[in-house]
Amino acid sequence: MIDIDPQRLLADLRRLASFGKLGTGVDRPAFSEADLAARRWLEQRMREAGLAARIDRYGNVYGRSPAPKSVLIGSHSDSVPKGGWLDGALGVIYGLEIARACIEHKSRAAVDVISFQDEEGRYLPFLGVKSFCGVLDEQAAARVLAGRGLDGAPARLDLARHFAYLEAHIEQGPKLEAAGRRLGVVTGIVGIRRVRITAHGQADHAGTTPMAMRKDAGAALIHLGKKILDDFAAMAAADTVWNIGVLEVQPGAANVVPALASMQVEFRDMDAALLERMFARLGELVSHAGRGMVALALEETARIEPAPMDAALGRVIAEAGRSQGEEPLFMQSGAGHDAMIISRMLPSAMLFIPSIGGRSHDIAEDTAEADIVLGCRVLAAAVERLQ
Amino acid sequence: MIDIDPQRLLADLRRLASFGKLGTGVDRPAFSEADLAARRWLEQRMREAGLAARIDRYGNVYGRSPAPKSVLIGSHSDSVPKGGWLDGALGVIYGLEIARACIEHKSRAAVDVISFQDEEGRYLPFLGVKSFCGVLDEQAAARVLAGRGLDGAPARLDLARHFAYLEAHIEQGPKLEAAGRRLGVVTGIVGIRRVRITAHGQADHAGTTPMAMRKDAGAALIHLGKKILDDFAAMAAADTVWNIGVLEVQPGAANVVPALASMQVEFRDMDAALLERMFARLGELVSHAGRGMVALALEETARIEPAPMDAALGRVIAEAGRSQGEEPLFMQSGAGHDAMIISRMLPSAMLFIPSIGGRSHDIAEDTAEADIVLGCRVLAAAVERLQ
Repeated sequence: MIDIDPQRLLADLRRLASFGKLGTGVDRPAFSEADLAARRWLEQRMREAGLAARIDRYGNVYGRSPAPKSVLIGSHSDSVPKGGWLDGALGVIYGLEIARACIEHKSRAAVDVISFQDEEGRYLPFLGVKSFCGVLDEQAAARVLAGRGLDGAPARLDLARHFAYLEAHIEQGPKLEAAGRRLGVVTGIVGIRRVRITAHGQADHAGTTPMAMRKDAGAALIHLGKKILDDFAAMAAADTVWNIGVLEVQPGAANVVPALASMQVEFRDMDAALLERMFARLGELVSHAGRGMVALALEETARIEPAPMDAALGRVIAEAGRSQGEEPLFMQSGAGHDAMIISRMLPSAMLFIPSIGGRSHDIAEDTAEADIVLGCRVLAAAVERLQ
Repeated sequence: MIDIDPQRLLADLRRLASFGKLGTGVDRPAFSEADLAARRWLEQRMREAGLAARIDRYGNVYGRSPAPKSVLIGSHSDSVPKGGWLDGALGVIYGLEIARACIEHKSRAAVDVISFQDEEGRYLPFLGVKSFCGVLDEQAAARVLAGRGLDGAPARLDLARHFAYLEAHIEQGPKLEAAGRRLGVVTGIVGIRRVRITAHGQADHAGTTPMAMRKDAGAALIHLGKKILDDFAAMAAADTVWNIGVLEVQPGAANVVPALASMQVEFRDMDAALLERMFARLGELVSHAGRGMVALALEETARIEPAPMDAALGRVIAEAGRSQGEEPLFMQSGAGHDAMIISRMLPSAMLFIPSIGGRSHDIAEDTAEADIVLGCRVLAAAVERLQ
């Protein structure tokens, strides 16, 4: 058995949280001073564990085990502004602790560890993992890197070496807590569609312009927004989610008919065909909106395809969970993770542990210590089963 | 007949528009340098016309005719930022031209002229006319005046002297143009209700939070907004108008469930009872909104009662219009005017002339010269009929 050290695990997590510490959370965006200091500390800690560690030009911290073949365990140590102390840091320190335990106890199992850069998208979402997988837009990345002084050759996925990717993460939602479970096995990461809808009308005096003569961009968007919310609710599968998170009218005065209005609509699901149907419905609704007075336009601003996780690897994690006395919940991830990119190249699986109150991307984010320790033991047991 | 001089009328309007000139419009907010310079010029021009003129401490420019009794004609020469060249200036220069013509031609008719200060509400809406009518909140006004160096005693309405108030204004809307009429006789100025509705929910990750667990302030406001628009349309009389001109959600990110949302709803009508029913309906809709997940609150931010104009005076203007060969349109004013305040003290009437394209509060505002001249002739004819 790979015998992890709970106290060392928690101490390393606390130490990592001291970089960019902000109250109970961290403020450690990619390439900030706190982020780079944290990465230098991680590199050092990996070396102390017996890994050949280095930071590449994108900021990825990659530690290689001495073995010729290995499982890759990782996540990201950058945070959103004013973020939580666990988030991606959890998966990185799990990797460090399991790799360290393997070497320490001369296990047959071997683990490479990685902390990817800028998963949160301060500059380029998934910058590090995209470089690692060879799918990065190098031109866009060059602009991000200019003048940062990082020059190590890019760390790269090695299909002759790596045979599985495991990523642990806090759930970032309330489902485990609501279900009374301590472990989640991720079946896949949802696809995301995001659109911006704009309405062009005409600013007019809201006292003197008869209702029938108005070109009210705001009213057009309220009517359309209501239809979208109703239709999406009718079309949705059990786990589909959607959100109108941005809604603006201009010029934005009580006595002026809105000339311009815009909103952003986002929706997520594991089923690409359902996302396509929802997208088509949006197009129909927009084409029928405005009553001939307001011109509406729809623009797709983001499209990420669903990323199913490897089912066999997921079963291995589930069995590892049961071996620790916990029945996991099989669930989708509604948020993106580094595993979303790497799963297209390598069999990948994710383990979730509960978020207290479902809180995430906030300094109030937290998880019970017992759950943190359990998650690491389960992941270690899964690594052992993969030998 | 009071024989006005069209060229002099247009020249004075053009001269007044040179103060704060901005392209085809003016930028002449109350108490700006341009506004005060325009008022000093007006005072001088009134004196040249034979009126006893002065600027009072509020910035009102008041010119008294030598006669013991007189009609009062006026409006305001301050503008909104980046406003039109006519707006209130039109009614002031009409007064100047008619008063001047009366004195010049030794008419029995006598006219006092006034340009009220800050009708547009840069500091205090209707500041000048409220002082003139003795209904000003002096404490609030003192803060506006501090350090401005104006010290003339307030000009005051004199019920022993003034027997009618006449105000001409551009329509600021499209009704006259759409009806093919050149004159509007205002039956009354609509009442206004304005409310702010706020929704308090909770910010959550829009990917990981199940729909049923969300406290989505934005969605609550979209559903409510749609109900308000539908119910108001069903309750409205022919000339009722309503507007949702402000609509905001926070934090305003595509992937975050809105925690806070607010909107401003404004509605106007001549019928105070209808306004009351609409206000009550808002209260009912708000109390039933939010589905138990989002807390909504309604706050009244403005309430102005409808101000009917004097029907007999309106008929006099209409007859004066017919004497010039034009049948006027009887119409309500959807915008506020100085006459709204003064009509509660003195029989008042308003004459509208067309706004090209209905444009107003914009440097694109304009009116055909022939319509400007016609309006002044009609108002002069009305003054004559009042003797």
